[in-house]
Amino acid sequence: MNRLALLLIPGLLCAQLLKVDTPERRLPAYIEERLSAPDKVLFGKLMRAGIESMWAVVVREGYPVCFINQLDPIKPNMRMVGRARTMRYLPNRKDLRAKVYAAGPQLNYKSAEEAQPGDVLVFDAGGETQAGVSGGVTTMRFLVRGGAGMVIDGAMRDQPELEAMHFQVYMRRGHASSVSPILMSVDYQVPVRIGNVTVLPGDLLVGESHGILVIPADVAEKVVNEALEHDVQEEFQRELLLKGESIYGVYPLNDANKKRFAEWKKSRR
Amino acid sequence: MNRLALLLIPGLLCAQLLKVDTPERRLPAYIEERLSAPDKVLFGKLMRAGIESMWAVVVREGYPVCFINQLDPIKPNMRMVGRARTMRYLPNRKDLRAKVYAAGPQLNYKSAEEAQPGDVLVFDAGGETQAGVSGGVTTMRFLVRGGAGMVIDGAMRDQPELEAMHFQVYMRRGHASSVSPILMSVDYQVPVRIGNVTVLPGDLLVGESHGILVIPADVAEKVVNEALEHDVQEEFQRELLLKGESIYGVYPLNDANKKRFAEWKKSRR
Amino acid sequence: MNRLALLLIPGLLCAQLLKVDTPERRLPAYIEERLSAPDKVLFGKLMRAGIESMWAVVVREGYPVCFINQLDPIKPNMRMVGRARTMRYLPNRKDLRAKVYAAGPQLNYKSAEEAQPGDVLVFDAGGETQAGVSGGVTTMRFLVRGGAGMVIDGAMRDQPELEAMHFQVYMRRGHASSVSPILMSVDYQVPVRIGNVTVLPGDLLVGESHGILVIPADVAEKVVNEALEHDVQEEFQRELLLKGESIYGVYPLNDANKKRFAEWKKSRR
Amino acid sequence: MNRLALLLIPGLLCAQLLKVDTPERRLPAYIEERLSAPDKVLFGKLMRAGIESMWAVVVREGYPVCFINQLDPIKPNMRMVGRARTMRYLPNRKDLRAKVYAAGPQLNYKSAEEAQPGDVLVFDAGGETQAGVSGGVTTMRFLVRGGAGMVIDGAMRDQPELEAMHFQVYMRRGHASSVSPILMSVDYQVPVRIGNVTVLPGDLLVGESHGILVIPADVAEKVVNEALEHDVQEEFQRELLLKGESIYGVYPLNDANKKRFAEWKKSRR
Amino acid sequence: MNRLALLLIPGLLCAQLLKVDTPERRLPAYIEERLSAPDKVLFGKLMRAGIESMWAVVVREGYPVCFINQLDPIKPNMRMVGRARTMRYLPNRKDLRAKVYAAGPQLNYKSAEEAQPGDVLVFDAGGETQAGVSGGVTTMRFLVRGGAGMVIDGAMRDQPELEAMHFQVYMRRGHASSVSPILMSVDYQVPVRIGNVTVLPGDLLVGESHGILVIPADVAEKVVNEALEHDVQEEFQRELLLKGESIYGVYPLNDANKKRFAEWKKSRR
Amino acid sequence: MNRLALLLIPGLLCAQLLKVDTPERRLPAYIEERLSAPDKVLFGKLMRAGIESMWAVVVREGYPVCFINQLDPIKPNMRMVGRARTMRYLPNRKDLRAKVYAAGPQLNYKSAEEAQPGDVLVFDAGGETQAGVSGGVTTMRFLVRGGAGMVIDGAMRDQPELEAMHFQVYMRRGHASSVSPILMSVDYQVPVRIGNVTVLPGDLLVGESHGILVIPADVAEKVVNEALEHDVQEEFQRELLLKGESIYGVYPLNDANKKRFAEWKKSRR
Repeated sequence: MNRLALLLIPGLLCAQLLKVDTPERRLPAYIEERLSAPDKVLFGKLMRAGIESMWAVVVREGYPVCFINQLDPIKPNMRMVGRARTMRYLPNRKDLRAKVYAAGPQLNYKSAEEAQPGDVLVFDAGGETQAGVSGGVTTMRFLVRGGAGMVIDGAMRDQPELEAMHFQVYMRRGHASSVSPILMSVDYQVPVRIGNVTVLPGDLLVGESHGILVIPADVAEKVVNEALEHDVQEEFQRELLLKGESIYGVYPLNDANKKRFAEWKKSRR
Repeated sequence: MNRLALLLIPGLLCAQLLKVDTPERRLPAYIEERLSAPDKVLFGKLMRAGIESMWAVVVREGYPVCFINQLDPIKPNMRMVGRARTMRYLPNRKDLRAKVYAAGPQLNYKSAEEAQPGDVLVFDAGGETQAGVSGGVTTMRFLVRGGAGMVIDGAMRDQPELEAMHFQVYMRRGHASSVSPILMSVDYQVPVRIGNVTVLPGDLLVGESHGILVIPADVAEKVVNEALEHDVQEEFQRELLLKGESIYGVYPLNDANKKRFAEWKKSRR
Repeated sequence: MNRLALLLIPGLLCAQLLKVDTPERRLPAYIEERLSAPDKVLFGKLMRAGIESMWAVVVREGYPVCFINQLDPIKPNMRMVGRARTMRYLPNRKDLRAKVYAAGPQLNYKSAEEAQPGDVLVFDAGGETQAGVSGGVTTMRFLVRGGAGMVIDGAMRDQPELEAMHFQVYMRRGHASSVSPILMSVDYQVPVRIGNVTVLPGDLLVGESHGILVIPADVAEKVVNEALEHDVQEEFQRELLLKGESIYGVYPLNDANKKRFAEWKKSRR
Repeated sequence: MNRLALLLIPGLLCAQLLKVDTPERRLPAYIEERLSAPDKVLFGKLMRAGIESMWAVVVREGYPVCFINQLDPIKPNMRMVGRARTMRYLPNRKDLRAKVYAAGPQLNYKSAEEAQPGDVLVFDAGGETQAGVSGGVTTMRFLVRGGAGMVIDGAMRDQPELEAMHFQVYMRRGHASSVSPILMSVDYQVPVRIGNVTVLPGDLLVGESHGILVIPADVAEKVVNEALEHDVQEEFQRELLLKGESIYGVYPLNDANKKRFAEWKKSRR
Repeated sequence: MNRLALLLIPGLLCAQLLKVDTPERRLPAYIEERLSAPDKVLFGKLMRAGIESMWAVVVREGYPVCFINQLDPIKPNMRMVGRARTMRYLPNRKDLRAKVYAAGPQLNYKSAEEAQPGDVLVFDAGGETQAGVSGGVTTMRFLVRGGAGMVIDGAMRDQPELEAMHFQVYMRRGHASSVSPILMSVDYQVPVRIGNVTVLPGDLLVGESHGILVIPADVAEKVVNEALEHDVQEEFQRELLLKGESIYGVYPLNDANKKRFAEWKKSRR
Repeated sequence: MNRLALLLIPGLLCAQLLKVDTPERRLPAYIEERLSAPDKVLFGKLMRAGIESMWAVVVREGYPVCFINQLDPIKPNMRMVGRARTMRYLPNRKDLRAKVYAAGPQLNYKSAEEAQPGDVLVFDAGGETQAGVSGGVTTMRFLVRGGAGMVIDGAMRDQPELEAMHFQVYMRRGHASSVSPILMSVDYQVPVRIGNVTVLPGDLLVGESHGILVIPADVAEKVVNEALEHDVQEEFQRELLLKGESIYGVYPLNDANKKRFAEWKKSRR
C-alpha cells in the first residue's frame, strides 16, 4: 500500500503533490526466518492486508466485537502480527498466590520461556495501571524466542527499554512498579478480556496505530485472502479519487467503474 | 449494636436526645433454618459483628485488599451474609460460546439451581453495564434455594423485582437487556475479580451499605470472633463519648479507661 | 405483578414466608383523566407490562439499543410512562444564543407551556452536570399541564422540590446553577441522544428504577400487547419456582410444563 | 416551603390533588440550643431559605463556582447547615507522616475534639475512595460536640453507623478501610478543594439532596436575607401556576402580576 | 516564531545553546492555491499567529469557552487552519436511519464531495469511540477537494492511512469499525458540540498539539490581527528573557521596557 | 545502557540483528554547568540509573507509592532529572485570590524567578484541564534560570512552544486558556498531590516515558548508588539472554550464574 500520488487537478495553476505515503509493512526477519512454511505465508499476508478490510470479513464471519481500541501502542507507525498466548492476572491475594506460585513460575516468565516464534503475549490485568505485569528482562527473553509483540490490559515496567525493542507493545500506561504487591498471575492460555474483546489462545492478532484486530484462527486464511482481494479494488478506487473523480460512483463502484476496474486489473498483470 | 442514647451534656439548658439508632442485624429465617449447625453459628456472628472490626482482622491476617466499594446495594440498610459461588463472564464470541454452551447450561441457571442455602452468587462481568447477566426468574429459583444475596460486577435485569425480594443485591447498574448479545458465561467456581478484590469460591461475604467485606474461609472464625471481642470495647468507648468525655484517652483507651473498661465488662455479665 | 408468596419447601421444619412484593403500577389520576381514550388504554398497559418483556419485543422489532441506564431516577420505586417531547442543549455561545433566543423563549419554558398530558420532557444536555437545564417553577407549570416525567442527560435545579412532586425525574446529578452561563437551548422536538440511545419526539418512554425503555410510537401497541402476553407466562413460571420446582423445564417451559401452563391459563378465566 | 396544593383545573371531570409537599426544614435542637444568639438566627434562616435563591445571590456577589455536586448525601431529604472546619489529606508518605504526627493528633481526632456547635467537618481527601478518613467513633465525639454534618471528598468508614446518626454526611463512597496506609492528614483549617469548589474555614455550608452551597462568611447575612425575600415571590408564582396560569407573565412576573404580587404580600401580613 | 537563541549567561564557564526552536507554520500549497484572495490572507495569518494570543481576543470578544482540548491530534507538530463544515451523528436507529438515508447520502460522503478548499470536517459523534464515522477512501476525496483537516468527537477508521495524509486529524481514538451498526449521520451544517465547545458551520478553526481554537467567523479578522500585534510584543519579551532579564518588568512590560519595546519595533522596520 | 546486540541463535539459517537500542541519558550542559559539585555527581547518576532499579530501592526504604503515571510527557524518549519546587493551585475564589495575590506575585512567576539550576516546577492543579497554570513566556524565564523540567497535575498553555524547549514537561493535557478565571495559585513549597503521590519540596524527581519517580532527598544517594549496582547485574543478565539462555537461572541468577557474574565483573575492570 505504498502510495505516492502526483495529483493533477484541472483548474489549478500548477500540479500539486498530495503525498499519501503509507509505509510498506514487512514481517521482521528475526520472526519470519523461524516461522513454519504455512505461517510464513499467513503472517506475510497479515502484514500487508488492510486492517479495515480484514475487520469487515471477521464481522461477516460472525464476530462483530473484534477490535481492541482501548490500549495505546508505544511506537508510532508499526504493525504487529502474531499469535495470542494469553494470561490472566488478578488482584493479589495471599492464599491464592501461595497456591498458584507453588504450581509453577510466574506467568510472565513461563510465557516468555515457552513462547513460539511469532507469538504475542496477551496479559489480561483487568485494566490495572498501578503495577507492571512484566518488564524489560523477561521481555528480552521473549524477544529472543521470536516474540512478535505484547498486548497488556494494564501496565508494563521498563517502558524506555520496550521502546528500544523493535516490536510493538500495547498497554494502558507504563509503571515502574513490579507486579506485586498489587497483582499476581493466575491462569495461562485461557480466554481473556482485553478492552471489550474476548481473546483466545491461538487467535491471530493484527495491530496498528488505532488498535488490534482479533482474528479467530479458524477463519484467518479466509479473512486475509478476502481482505487482500478487497484491497486491490480500494487501490483502484483511490487512484480514481486522486484523479479528481467524484466519490459517488467510485465508492462503491457503479457499473461503469466496475468495468474500468476489470480492465485495470487485467492491465496490471 | 442497637443504641438509643439519652445524652446529658452539662451546660445545656435541657437534655438532648441524640439518637444513634443502628438497627440490629438478623439472619433471615428462610436461610437460617436450612444452614448446618456450624454455619448457623458462623453466619449469626457475621450478621452481628462490626464490619470495620472484621476488616481490621482480615487485614492483619494478610489480606489488605478485601473490601469492595465499587458496587451499589439496591436496598438501603440491609446486611448481606453468605458464601461466594463465583462465575466469570466475557464479551460474547461465537466460537467460545458454542463450546461453553455445548458443555452445559448458562451459568446463571446452573448457579441458581446448584446454590446451597446461604450462598451469594458472584458474577464477574468485567464491569460491563450494557447487558444483564441474570434476571428475576432465575433469581427467584436462587432465592427459593436459600440464596442470601448477589454481587455483580456488571448489571442485572428486572431491578424492580430484585428490589422486592428480601435479600441484598450489589451491582454497578441495572439494565433491561438480556446477557446476549454482549456477554456470555465462561467459568464456574473460579477466582474472579470484583471491583479491585479477588473473590474465591467459598469466601465468606459480608455486605453493608458501603460495600462488601471478603473473608477467606480459613480465617472466618478467627475474624468474626476477634471482631466481636473488639466490638464490646467499642461499645464501651461509645458510651463514654455519649457521656461527653474527650476522644483523647477514650479512643484508644488510656490506662485509666482500660481499668474502667475491665470493670464495665464484669458488671455486664 | 403484586405477589406475596407463601413458600412451602419440603424438608424444612416450618413454612417460610418468602415475600416478593412487587408494587402494582398505576397511572396517576391527574394524567389519566386528561388522556385521549386510546392513550388511556395504551398508557395503562405500559404501566403494567414488564419492562424486560417489552424490551424483548422492541429489540425483535429492530431496535437493539433502546434502554437508557446512564441516568438515575430521583425517586425509588416509581414507574414513569409518557410520550417524549425533546430538546437539545449546547454549550453557551453568544452569537448562537442571540439568534436562538430572538426566535422564541428558552425551551424549558416553551416545552412546559406546550406540554400535552402524559408528556415526558427530554433534555439532551450532552451529559453536562455543572448547570441545571430547568428548575422547580417551570416544572410546576409542566406538572399542572399533565406532565408525566422528565429525562435529563445533564442536571436539574431544585432537586428537593422535584422530589416532592409526584412524578419521576431521571438525571445525571442535580445542581443549583441556572442554565446560563454554561448551556443554552437550541433545538426543539428533534432527535436527541440520551445516554447511548437516540430518542425521537413522540417515542413512548417507560422508566423504572434501572432505566428508561424507549419505544418507537409505531410499534408501541405491538410491544405492550406481546409483553403482557409474555408476562402471563412468566407469572406461571414464577409460581412453579415458588413451589420449589427446578429452573430447568420451567424457564423456558418444557413440553410438560407448557401443558400445565395451558390449563393454568384456562383455570384463571 | 411546605406546600400541599389542591389543584382545580377547568375542563377536568374532577379536582386533582397535585401534592408538592416540600418538607419544612428545621435546625436540630441539639445544635440550636448551643449556638450563639446571632448564629441561632443565621442558621435558622439558612435552614429555611431556598438553596437556588441563595445560589443566585452568592453568584451575584462574585462567587460563580460555589456549589458542590460531585458528592452524595448518605440520607434522603435532610438539609445540612453549618460552618466549615477544613482538613487536607494527602497520600501517605513515611517522612511527612512522621513529621505531621509528631506535631499533634491525626486531624479527624483533633477536629472532632475542637469542633464548635454547628460545625461541619470538611475533609479534602483528593477524591480517594479506597481509605476512610474517619469513622463512627470519632464522629460520635463530633456529634456530641454539636457537629452539624460532614463533607468528604473521599470516603468514610462505618457508613451504617453514620446513617444512624441524625445528621447529613456527603462523600464519594464509603469504605471499611482505615485512613492508613493510603492517606494521612496534613493541614488543618486551610483552604481546600471539594469537587471543583474551594472551601475556606468559616464558610457557611448549606447541603441538600443535590449538593452543597458554599457561602463565604462575609456575605452570608446578605445572601440569606435576599434569598428569603426572593422565596416569597416564588411562593406567589407557584400559587399562580397551581391555579393553571401560563408560565409566561408569571415567571418572571409581568407588570400586571407584579401588582397582584404587591397586593398578595399585603394581604398576608 | 522561529527562534534559535544563543544564550550567554554571565557567570557560566561557557556559552550555552538554549534552543527554543518553534517551527514556522505554513499553509500547504494544495490548499493555498485554491483559496479566494481574502481567504489566502486570512488563512495565512491564522497559520502564523500565536494560538494563545488569538484565544485572548476570542475571549475578550465574548466567547469564553472556545478551545477544545478533549481530542488528540494524530500527528505531532502540525498546525491546522480551516473553516468548519459540521455534521451531527446519533446512535443508530432503524426508523430514523431509513428516513435520513432516503433523503440523501451518508454525511461523510456528502461533506467530502461538497467540501470547499480550506474546509475542516467536524463530526459530532457524541464521543462514541466504538465506531468510525468515516475512513480513508472518503477522506481521500476530501483531501483532493482541498480539505484542510478533520475534527471528530468520536473515532475514525484507517488511522495509518490518515497518518500518511499531510493534514491534521483530531479524534478521541481510532477504530476499525464502520459507522454502522452503532452510529448514523443525522444533521448537516448545524451547530454541534465538540468536547465542551459549540462549533458552528463557517467557524474558523486553528488546531495545535494541545487542541483547537474555535473562532466565530465574524470576529476572525479582528482576532488574528490583534493577536499578531500581540505576538510582536511577546517576541520582544522573549528576547529580553533570553538575555537573562527578570520576568518582573518584562512580562508584563513595565514603563522602562515599554520604551525599549517602542525602540525595538522601530529598529526592526 | 546503550546496547546493540548481535544475536546468534543456533538453528537459524543466518544471524539475526536484534537491536535493543536504549539511548544514553545525559544531563544537559546548560544545567550541569550550574550545579554544585555534589549535585553534579548526584544528577549525573540519576540520569544513568535504571528507573525500575531506583524504584525498588525507594520502596525498600519505606515509600511504596512513589511513581506518578497519570501524566503524559510531551516529548518522546527524554529523561528528566531535577529537584522539586512545588505549588498548590485551587479553584478560583474572589476573596482568597485577593488575599493571596496581595501577598505576592502569582506562583508561576515567583517559581520561575526563584528557580535554582536543576529545579523541576511541580504544579498541583487538582487535575483541572480547562485552564493552563503557566505558559511559554514564564517558562522561558524558568529555562534560562536552569530549569530542568515541569510536572503539572493539570494543564499548560503554549504546548507547541514547550515542545520546542529542550526539557521535559509532564501534564494531563494542554489548554490555550490562562489560569484565570478557573484557578489561582495558593501555596508555595508545600507538600502536594500529583496523581496519587505526595511530592515534597526538595524531592529528587526522575522522569521517563512512563512516568516520574519521586525520591525523598534523604535517601537519594542510597537509592541511586544501589540502583547503579543493580544495573550492572541486569546488564550481565541481558547479555546472557541475548546469547539465548533460558530466563530460569538467569533472572534471578542461580548459583552457577552468580559465579559467572563475579568473573564477568572482574573482566570488565
